[in-house]
Amino acid sequence: MTTAEIVTQIQKKKSFLCIGLDVDLQKIPLFLLEKEDPIFEFNKAIIDATNHLCVAYKPNTAFYEAYGIKGWKSLEKTINYINEKYPEIFTIADAKRGDIGNTSSMYAKAFFEDLAFDSVTVAPYMGKDSVEPFLAFKNKHTILLALTSNQGAYDFQTKSIDQKEVYKHVLETSKIWRNSKNLMYVVGATKASYLADIRKIVPDSFLLVPGVGAQGGNLREVCKYGMNEQVGLLINSSRGIIYASKEKNFAEAAAQKANNLQAQMADILS
Amino acid sequence: MTTAEIVTQIQKKKSFLCIGLDVDLQKIPLFLLEKEDPIFEFNKAIIDATNHLCVAYKPNTAFYEAYGIKGWKSLEKTINYINEKYPEIFTIADAKRGDIGNTSSMYAKAFFEDLAFDSVTVAPYMGKDSVEPFLAFKNKHTILLALTSNQGAYDFQTKSIDQKEVYKHVLETSKIWRNSKNLMYVVGATKASYLADIRKIVPDSFLLVPGVGAQGGNLREVCKYGMNEQVGLLINSSRGIIYASKEKNFAEAAAQKANNLQAQMADILS
Repeated sequence: MTTAEIVTQIQKKKSFLCIGLDVDLQKIPLFLLEKEDPIFEFNKAIIDATNHLCVAYKPNTAFYEAYGIKGWKSLEKTINYINEKYPEIFTIADAKRGDIGNTSSMYAKAFFEDLAFDSVTVAPYMGKDSVEPFLAFKNKHTILLALTSNQGAYDFQTKSIDQKEVYKHVLETSKIWRNSKNLMYVVGATKASYLADIRKIVPDSFLLVPGVGAQGGNLREVCKYGMNEQVGLLINSSRGIIYASKEKNFAEAAAQKANNLQAQMADILS
Repeated sequence: MTTAEIVTQIQKKKSFLCIGLDVDLQKIPLFLLEKEDPIFEFNKAIIDATNHLCVAYKPNTAFYEAYGIKGWKSLEKTINYINEKYPEIFTIADAKRGDIGNTSSMYAKAFFEDLAFDSVTVAPYMGKDSVEPFLAFKNKHTILLALTSNQGAYDFQTKSIDQKEVYKHVLETSKIWRNSKNLMYVVGATKASYLADIRKIVPDSFLLVPGVGAQGGNLREVCKYGMNEQVGLLINSSRGIIYASKEKNFAEAAAQKANNLQAQMADILS
């Protein structure tokens, strides 16, 4: 999917919402556990109820790997379902991968070819040759961790190298990598005021912003500092939407939560 | 597996060799491709031929994920085979995971419980709360990326924060995390002279050292600077061993390569 196609969807749906499909069997409605594939049934219901309100879905691979082969099957069914039924939706494998060059190529093959995701999140610690194999795929996006939403972000990411924080070095350095036009960045909403500085370094890039909702980030603050001319933001909410209810109506309850965020987004966009 | 059990194995086998099971279908003997599960058949033959020469096996998850569900099944069969037939062997899931706390817990469940690995490699970029969920597992080891063997290591890892390189901050900071006794570290053999400094910070920790062989690291140099009283090193070789031959005798050829390294190790240990 091209960036222009993402922007078109945002304008059409008046939404830049990404819904995180982080399915924990402890948290889904009990009656789903009787189904053959509870994770997929849960996702399918959430997707059918919310696809008109969001522009992206983001399964976090940890929640699937935790259930082994069954979990990987649920992930495959989920991405196939989205790609077949809602091909206009941007899909993100939130995998936070990254390894030496030939190994990163295998991860890129896993997420861009075997599972046909539009994008994958990647950790920057191993540098250029660990990221470029992902960037080599045309019309696929690599979403590099810059400043994450968790407390541990302060351990290394915000420390300064030559009076400039590590995450800013990640932003600046990655801009000169081969095919860097295929880069987006993860920037946590819990640090909204940092976005003004970030926009000075990457004015045109899309930012994937987790941490609105469960992690306490504020939507208006994020938009104030982070929005650019083509919006340039994908705001993710996972737990705050998908676990709105454990009852029969869980999908409608999730849609209501998504609708609340989408309405705020439509208001901001207008 | 406890650290003491690893040390006992090293003394018994006169080896601190780890063999990387990074199976690429393009590189294995052609006749294996006719089997139902070529990846597992390849691993099984390599393991049966080399288990007396090494103390650890390290499948890199990328090479399995690239083949989707089939690949994940091969990984599961491989770890189960090692655990059943050679329970004295230390197993490493080279996965380079790391995410916010509740998500890292799911990864820990995936590798320590669903697939019963003894250890997993983890990336440090997201800090303390992304690593501690792995450390919480008793007799399981978390192998944190410190200084990797690739060129991209110079992009961020060797840059200085307050006159001290990022990877040294990772070593020092992680030492005070909860259950840090369960930490080991990845240190690339291509940077052997760095090991003297690293040993000043983590004198007692085990170091997993990739990059001997295919990536050009030198075994004697690594041991000179990196070895401690309980050896404290696991030296990994992947491609240099497992792809020694594409013929019928591939497993024996791999054992010969492993034997060469083990003989050097026995010499160094004596």
